Amino acid sequence: MLPILALAALAQAAAAQPETPKTPTEIVAEAPAGAWRDIPADELLVVDLQNGGRVVVQLAPEFAPVHVANIQALARANWWDGAAIYRVQDNYVVQWGNNESERPLPAGVVERPPAEYSRPLQGLRVRPLGYPDSYAPEAGHALGWPVAWDGQGRANLTHCYASVGVGRGLSPDTGTGGELYAVIGHSPRHLDRNIAVVGRVVEGIEHMSALPRGTEALGFYEEESQHVPLARVALASQLPEAERPSFQFMDTASAAFDSYVRARANRQDAFFIRPAGGVDVCNAPVPVRRAPAG
Amino acid sequence: MLPILALAALAQAAAAQPETPKTPTEIVAEAPAGAWRDIPADELLVVDLQNGGRVVVQLAPEFAPVHVANIQALARANWWDGAAIYRVQDNYVVQWGNNESERPLPAGVVERPPAEYSRPLQGLRVRPLGYPDSYAPEAGHALGWPVAWDGQGRANLTHCYASVGVGRGLSPDTGTGGELYAVIGHSPRHLDRNIAVVGRVVEGIEHMSALPRGTEALGFYEEESQHVPLARVALASQLPEAERPSFQFMDTASAAFDSYVRARANRQDAFFIRPAGGVDVCNAPVPVRRAPAG
Repeated sequence: MLPILALAALAQAAAAQPETPKTPTEIVAEAPAGAWRDIPADELLVVDLQNGGRVVVQLAPEFAPVHVANIQALARANWWDGAAIYRVQDNYVVQWGNNESERPLPAGVVERPPAEYSRPLQGLRVRPLGYPDSYAPEAGHALGWPVAWDGQGRANLTHCYASVGVGRGLSPDTGTGGELYAVIGHSPRHLDRNIAVVGRVVEGIEHMSALPRGTEALGFYEEESQHVPLARVALASQLPEAERPSFQFMDTASAAFDSYVRARANRQDAFFIRPAGGVDVCNAPVPVRRAPAG
Repeated sequence: MLPILALAALAQAAAAQPETPKTPTEIVAEAPAGAWRDIPADELLVVDLQNGGRVVVQLAPEFAPVHVANIQALARANWWDGAAIYRVQDNYVVQWGNNESERPLPAGVVERPPAEYSRPLQGLRVRPLGYPDSYAPEAGHALGWPVAWDGQGRANLTHCYASVGVGRGLSPDTGTGGELYAVIGHSPRHLDRNIAVVGRVVEGIEHMSALPRGTEALGFYEEESQHVPLARVALASQLPEAERPSFQFMDTASAAFDSYVRARANRQDAFFIRPAGGVDVCNAPVPVRRAPAG
């Protein structure tokens, strides 16, 4: 796939040298319908806070199938009734759940899932970023996700801002998926391949990132009265059709995404004096949008 | 310097293979007094919010001398009286100021400072990170700061979480220092060499990062009533001695810092299964602490 993309880009460059290079935002706005992929309603976890905020998480079954199936089963069983956000650590994570170690798990939930920290590179249609990565031999995007991969044919989702992972105890525990966290700071890439990343927040991260920080060690709230209660956690597919949010992500194998990453790495807006000539995988977030009406 | 450090590290490794590798936190806690440097009271900008929060910024005169001198002059003239935080953009920046385009500048403030976006590498005692950087040929630390440098002998402060930079209009404007921002998300390294970075928040970033996000474009607050007023912005040296905060940063040329970065790149705490074998310059923040009483 990649040589063809590169060739297409070359041909395009030869055909028309644009006078004003497009900004990443313009490229996303002008991307053709064919560059977008629908997110299935079963792969959207809708986290409604009692304070009215809504946080929508896209799940990544291609990378952590057992954990994602667990999360879907927990949602369908309303397992998070009474759950809350109990940890907000500045420049790190927001964590929520419902006491997985004490609360019985519904039927069908795997109590000790395998360590889904990486998967075969084979089968992923990767777009290498094209710039060095500080953590892995290579990084880039695949199936709409930021990924890194090693020289042994294994790929992993990278921990970026808004990534969602599964809270766990010490190894070999991998967590059930009942306790989840979202990244709210600089990408903690040292967690890559040490935790199951199961998705990313696609809307409403600010309802988590702007919460008061917990003052106990690791950002846990000191008092239970500080917990931020959740009103409901459900898959979009469980919601009445009229209330169901609907999203699309940009196909990371599309020409539009290729242009977008190139523009992110070489900002030429009027504000910029020196394009970076590089970008890290977490600073080229995959565009996500509300699905157009229709 | 580096070969000597490397040699010392080797000798240490040969002398005693520690049974349980120390965590970054342990290394910082056990660092000798000689590994710490006092931050002069003139190089601490104390930003007190009307809501009681205090944010302390360490200035970086070695990297942006004219902008830092401006900030010191503005503080001494109480130029920020009546100032406010007016922009909070999720995963990006918090910005505050006092209308520099309309409010007269005190004597001694340079209205159009030079573009202090980089400086000579010469004179910096750099510790190369030792891992690839996505934005520059090399990155590492120098004089207590995260830096990157090119092949032409120029070094720049990198935009990391809590970095503080100078708001500006379109080039060639560089801003006076009257409008400042702090990073509250994934490191926006594409801003490197495009803006004057003048320091970093060393305490209280959570009073900025947890603020409600602005809903206008670029995170500006829609209504002036949403602005977060500042009670006082002053250098620590202007405060009565009893109220004066006092900080130290870890010498980035010290053996303790070397151990700290190595531990950050190879986490061996009980929680970790696979040490990353790498780290990016913003994920190895320079340790800063309150100066010990004495």
